[in-house]
Amino acid sequence: MLCTVEVLSIGNELLTGKTANTNATWLAQHTTSLGGFVTRVTTVRDNLATIETTIREILRRKPTVLLVSGGLGPTFDDMTLKALANSTKRPLEVNKAALQMVREKYRSLIHKHRLPLTKARTKMATLPKGAQALPNPVGTAPGVLLQIGRSTIICLPGVPSELEKIFETSISRMISVYSAGFLRESKSLHVSGILESEMAPLVDRVMRMNPGVYIKSHPGGRERRARSKIELEFSFESSNLTDAQKKIECAINDMAQILSKKGKIVK
Amino acid sequence: MLCTVEVLSIGNELLTGKTANTNATWLAQHTTSLGGFVTRVTTVRDNLATIETTIREILRRKPTVLLVSGGLGPTFDDMTLKALANSTKRPLEVNKAALQMVREKYRSLIHKHRLPLTKARTKMATLPKGAQALPNPVGTAPGVLLQIGRSTIICLPGVPSELEKIFETSISRMISVYSAGFLRESKSLHVSGILESEMAPLVDRVMRMNPGVYIKSHPGGRERRARSKIELEFSFESSNLTDAQKKIECAINDMAQILSKKGKIVK
Repeated sequence: MLCTVEVLSIGNELLTGKTANTNATWLAQHTTSLGGFVTRVTTVRDNLATIETTIREILRRKPTVLLVSGGLGPTFDDMTLKALANSTKRPLEVNKAALQMVREKYRSLIHKHRLPLTKARTKMATLPKGAQALPNPVGTAPGVLLQIGRSTIICLPGVPSELEKIFETSISRMISVYSAGFLRESKSLHVSGILESEMAPLVDRVMRMNPGVYIKSHPGGRERRARSKIELEFSFESSNLTDAQKKIECAINDMAQILSKKGKIVK
Repeated sequence: MLCTVEVLSIGNELLTGKTANTNATWLAQHTTSLGGFVTRVTTVRDNLATIETTIREILRRKPTVLLVSGGLGPTFDDMTLKALANSTKRPLEVNKAALQMVREKYRSLIHKHRLPLTKARTKMATLPKGAQALPNPVGTAPGVLLQIGRSTIICLPGVPSELEKIFETSISRMISVYSAGFLRESKSLHVSGILESEMAPLVDRVMRMNPGVYIKSHPGGRERRARSKIELEFSFESSNLTDAQKKIECAINDMAQILSKKGKIVK
């Protein structure tokens, strides 16, 4: 099954350029490697109305999974759960399991200070009705899972180590199952001594010869500097790894043959 | 004037996690430092219908500027200009100035090869009617400017060096003028020995004492590892730099005073 995934990143720091959105890249990489198909990443500010509207827009596109990052902490501008409650028309309520998780976190810090469940701390356990708390092995704010129609919404903290750990412990298996073995296989061919504009008609030709194989040219290869170096990435989506690899090999051979006839260097 | 800016990044490689969206971070940083207010970054795949719909959605929000990156090259999956034409209901046509720019680029390579204006190359000069070509000092595909109502749409190539150079030569001054001296001033205070949940009510208090000053807490500071270190970023948006700096200093002093009374370390 095709498991479509959207990412919603929340945080002013991402839109002032103070912080690079490494969470989105990490989520995209890991989701793709598990067979998920990331269709869109949206980054918005810490603004309640904007987050609400954006969640509503995304749910209208019915992704299998919506991964939300950021805005789960204790400060005033952590408003993801309130926005999620509003946009899905669910009341917010203190979630018992989440409160237990938060309480345990502060109890384990008790040797240093006595840490009561203040308003700011209870906020992290206040979830939309019907949501499920996901344990956070390395931080305080639990992750949150809410099923809306056929979409599974997952809220993760913006601190990278916490986001990654919750994803690995509670989400990655789910995406594998949703994708049901669907995978994206890819392999690259590096060509030099050719301009992208010269490459373009050859890409068209080899794609016509190999239906289903997608060829993406990245000018300059990984460095993106050398004007006459191109990385050609061949990819194929399938539930059959051997088949996908065969299809890609075949397309790569076709391309290499055409290029070597033109005297272009291929590796 | 508030100059709102949206960024639309186009490219499958950004959604498989193969490439980090460094262009969006760069654009956000530079736009912010020029006084622009980036409200949203959207990243989508190389899919004509998706790009079209997304441009239409963004224009409905009427940003002052829409910066589009990627999809201006010669290959089949470079479809930004076609999508822009469709979504703004303008026909595509070969733009004389753009064609001249593209021709010059291939003419300057003529000592190595004779490079004719093939279909793939002419494509880079085929713009929506009414668009303006922006010189690309370091690459082949020109940038594109199209005014739709009160929104200025700018399309930039996805290759970072080309995007940056076109932005610097043709866009940065425009954003300064649109922002009319509006700026975002910010300064950070680093605090240790405190948890974010303990910080939250203090942030509320100091923000109430200093209207207009926005305080964002970044747990762990830049490292985001140390659990009891917090970077507090104080920001103020104004057209008066001295005023903004004063407001920020005042809020920082209030916060430092409250924290030192609690015995927390501030630097």
